Amino acid sequence: MSEPVRVGVIGLGTVGSGVVRLLAESADQIARHAGRRILVERAVVKDLTKPRHVPLASDRISGEITDIAGDDSISVGVLLVGGLEPARSMAVALLESGKDVVTANKALLAEHGPELFALARAKGRSIAFEAAVAGGIPIVAAIGECLAANRIESIRGILNGTSNFILSTMEEEGADYAAVLKLAQQKGFAEADPAMDVDGTDATQKLAILAHLAFGVWVPWRDIPQTGIEAIDQELMAFAAEFGYRIRLVAVAARVNGRLAMRVSPTLVKAGTPLAETREAYNAVSIVGDAVGRMFFHGLGAGQMPTASAVVADIIDTVVGRAAITFRTTGLLDPDSPAARIAGVEMPERHFLRIPVLDRPGVMAEISGTLGRHGISIASLIQHETGMPGPVPMVIMTHHASPAAVAGALTEIAVCDAVQGTSACLPVLDDWQPAAEHLEG
Amino acid sequence: MSEPVRVGVIGLGTVGSGVVRLLAESADQIARHAGRRILVERAVVKDLTKPRHVPLASDRISGEITDIAGDDSISVGVLLVGGLEPARSMAVALLESGKDVVTANKALLAEHGPELFALARAKGRSIAFEAAVAGGIPIVAAIGECLAANRIESIRGILNGTSNFILSTMEEEGADYAAVLKLAQQKGFAEADPAMDVDGTDATQKLAILAHLAFGVWVPWRDIPQTGIEAIDQELMAFAAEFGYRIRLVAVAARVNGRLAMRVSPTLVKAGTPLAETREAYNAVSIVGDAVGRMFFHGLGAGQMPTASAVVADIIDTVVGRAAITFRTTGLLDPDSPAARIAGVEMPERHFLRIPVLDRPGVMAEISGTLGRHGISIASLIQHETGMPGPVPMVIMTHHASPAAVAGALTEIAVCDAVQGTSACLPVLDDWQPAAEHLEG
Repeated sequence: MSEPVRVGVIGLGTVGSGVVRLLAESADQIARHAGRRILVERAVVKDLTKPRHVPLASDRISGEITDIAGDDSISVGVLLVGGLEPARSMAVALLESGKDVVTANKALLAEHGPELFALARAKGRSIAFEAAVAGGIPIVAAIGECLAANRIESIRGILNGTSNFILSTMEEEGADYAAVLKLAQQKGFAEADPAMDVDGTDATQKLAILAHLAFGVWVPWRDIPQTGIEAIDQELMAFAAEFGYRIRLVAVAARVNGRLAMRVSPTLVKAGTPLAETREAYNAVSIVGDAVGRMFFHGLGAGQMPTASAVVADIIDTVVGRAAITFRTTGLLDPDSPAARIAGVEMPERHFLRIPVLDRPGVMAEISGTLGRHGISIASLIQHETGMPGPVPMVIMTHHASPAAVAGALTEIAVCDAVQGTSACLPVLDDWQPAAEHLEG
Repeated sequence: MSEPVRVGVIGLGTVGSGVVRLLAESADQIARHAGRRILVERAVVKDLTKPRHVPLASDRISGEITDIAGDDSISVGVLLVGGLEPARSMAVALLESGKDVVTANKALLAEHGPELFALARAKGRSIAFEAAVAGGIPIVAAIGECLAANRIESIRGILNGTSNFILSTMEEEGADYAAVLKLAQQKGFAEADPAMDVDGTDATQKLAILAHLAFGVWVPWRDIPQTGIEAIDQELMAFAAEFGYRIRLVAVAARVNGRLAMRVSPTLVKAGTPLAETREAYNAVSIVGDAVGRMFFHGLGAGQMPTASAVVADIIDTVVGRAAITFRTTGLLDPDSPAARIAGVEMPERHFLRIPVLDRPGVMAEISGTLGRHGISIASLIQHETGMPGPVPMVIMTHHASPAAVAGALTEIAVCDAVQGTSACLPVLDDWQPAAEHLEG
C-alpha cells in the first residue's frame, strides 16, 4: 500500500466531527477503497476553547487556516464551515497553496462557485462537493458521471431535510407549523435560525448547483423563483389530502420548449408517488434523462454521518485521482458556462387555489368567471359548509394553466368584495409516469 | 480537445444497437463528458446477413472478434453478447490484446468474474460493468465509490425487470401468470425463453456481483438459495393484499451476526414501501450503510436505451481513466477475495404460509400445534368459508421465525391427512424504517 495521505479539516461542527470520526473508525474500509490510509493531520476551528469530542489529539487542533494551507504534508483541505466568509477566503487560501478541496458548503458554491472553480483550474487542483447537495445521496456523481450519456430533461427534488421534516410531521401529527418547527429544533433537524431552510434558500442554492451539472448552464440562485413553507397550514394540507395529494417543498428544473424553467415552491404531489412518500428529514431526487428514463434516488439529506459519508467518499475520490479527472474533463462550473435566462419560462401545470370567500350567492360565479376570462379552467372545486360566520375557503384545482395567467386572475380576485383575506396558490405535480414507452425501441 | 478514442462493439442486439445509436446521436454531450469524441470503429456480429439498423457503415461490421482484438487503433472493447461462450473467449481475446473491456453480461461476470478480472489486472486493463446490474441505476458506482466510507449492512433489490413486470401486471390486471408472461413477451419485456428471468437466476447472478462490491466477498451464485416466480398465483396475491402486502421477487444480502445471509425469493413486501411500489419493468435497490443510513434507488433496469446509457457511462469512465483507478484501487473481484460461506445463515423473519386443508374439525389445532412445536408463533390467520367441497386455503402470517424451523414444520404438515396439496411459503419484508435514529449523534 502507498504512503498515507494527509488531510486537513476546517471546522469541527456536526459534519466536521463526523468526518474525523468516520476517517478514524472506518479507517480500514476507507483504505481499501483509497489504496492508502487517509489521516487527519490537522483540524482548524474558530473557537479553540470549545471541547471537541473527536479522535484527534488536541495539539492537532489549531485556529488558523494557514496551519493547514501552509503545511506541505497536507494535500487535501476539507472545508466544513458554513456561510460565505471566512469560508470563501479559506477556500482561496487552500487552492492557492496547492491543496485539493472537498466541501459541503452549498451556499459558498452557489455564490462563488465559478470564481473558486476557475482558481482551482488555474492551480491544477480539484473541488469536490458531493456532500453539498442532498447529503448522502450521490446525486452529483449520478448526474456528472453515471448519466453522462443523457440529455437531462428534468430534475425534481426534495433537497431540504428540515422543511421536509416539518411538512411530513405536520401532516402526520396534525400539529401546526410553529409547534413542529420547535420540535425539529429540539431534534436537531432545524438550526436555531431556520430561515434559510424554511424560506427555500437552501433548496434553491442546491438546485442552482444541480441544474449546472445537469444542463451545463449557470443560473444565479437569486434568479430562481423561491417560495418557502412558512405559510403552509393544516387546512391547506387537509384540502390537498382531499384531492389525493401531499404538500412537499419541491425544487424543479426542467426543459420547456428549448428553455429552462426553474422554481422552488411548496407543491402538491400525488400521494403514493415517490416524492410524496418522502418523509422526515429524507431527501429525494427524480431525474428524467432521454436515454435512461426516470431515475429516483432517496436517502438522508442531512445529519452528521450521512453527510460525513459523502464528504469521505469525495476525499477518497480526490486521493485516488477520480475527482481530478471529473473536474478536468467536465468543465465543472466553468466561468464560461452559458448563463440561462429563466425569467418568464413557465411550466404549464395544474394549480391548487384556496380563496377565502364570503358564503353568499354569486360568489362562485364571480370567481369562476374571473378564472375563465384568464383562460383557466376548473378541474374540481371544494367548498364545505361551515355554519360559521366569516369567510370560508373555496378550494379549486385547475386544469393545466400558465402560472402568469393564474397570478393575473388571483390579483383580480383579491379585490373582489366577497374575497376576505389572502389566497394561497400552489403548483401541482402529478406526472410521475413510467417513461418507458417513448424510450424503448 | 484530444484525439478521438475508438471503440469496438461486440454484438448488435438490442443493447449493442442502442449503444451505437447513443454514441452517434448524443456525440456532443458524450464528448463534453469524455473530453474527446468517442467513435465506433467497428462492430462484430454473429450473423452478417441480418440487417442492422444502426448508424454504422456496413464495411465497419464484420464477423470475427480478431477484427477488433487485432486492431491497434481500438482501445476499448464493448462486449454486448449474452451467455458464457463465446463471450468468455471474446473477453479474454480483448484483454490479451490490451483493450479495456466494458460489458453488460452479468452471467459472464457471475461465472467467470474472478478469472477475467485477474487477467485484466495482469494486463493492466480494466473491466467496467455498471450495465450488468440494474441497467440504468448506477448501483455499481454507488456501492463501489459513493458509499466507499460505509460498512454496508444490507442490500435488498428488485433486480429483474421481466419478473417484476409479470408480478406487478398480475396484481394490477388480475390476470394469471401464463397470460401475463405471454404479454411480457409480446411487449419485449421477456425473452422467448424467459427461464433465467422467472426462475430467479438472473437476479441471483446480479446479487452475487452486488454482494461482492458491498461486502468484499465472493459467493458463487449457485450457492445462493433461489426461488422463482412461476408458482405465484392470484390467490396468493389476494391473500397477501389482505394482510397489506404485495409480492415482489426480492434479492437480499445482509449481515446477520457477523456472517452473510443471501437469498432470491418471491417475498411479501409491505404495500406503500418503495420496493412494493416498484412496478412494471423497473428495478429498485435499497442499501443500508452504517454512516449513510438507508439509500434507495429506482429506475429502469432493462430495455435498450437505459442499458445503453449505463454502457456509455462506463465507456466514458474508461476513456477518461476513472474506471482504471477504481479497478486498481478497489481490488474488484480479486481472486483472493475471501469466499463467504452463506449456507445455513438465516435471517429471522416473518413467513407467509398458504396450506391447502380440508375444512373439518381439528385441522386448525393440528396445524397450529405443529407450528408451535417447531417454535413458530402465529401472528394472524385467514381462512375464508368457500362453501365448496375440497381443500380450502389456510393462510398464516407468522411472527419472526427461523426459515429452517418453518421448513421443518411444513415437512411435517405436508403429511397430515387434512392437508391436500402443496403449501406455499414466502418470506416477509416489513422493516422499511428510517434508519436515522441510530445513525445520528
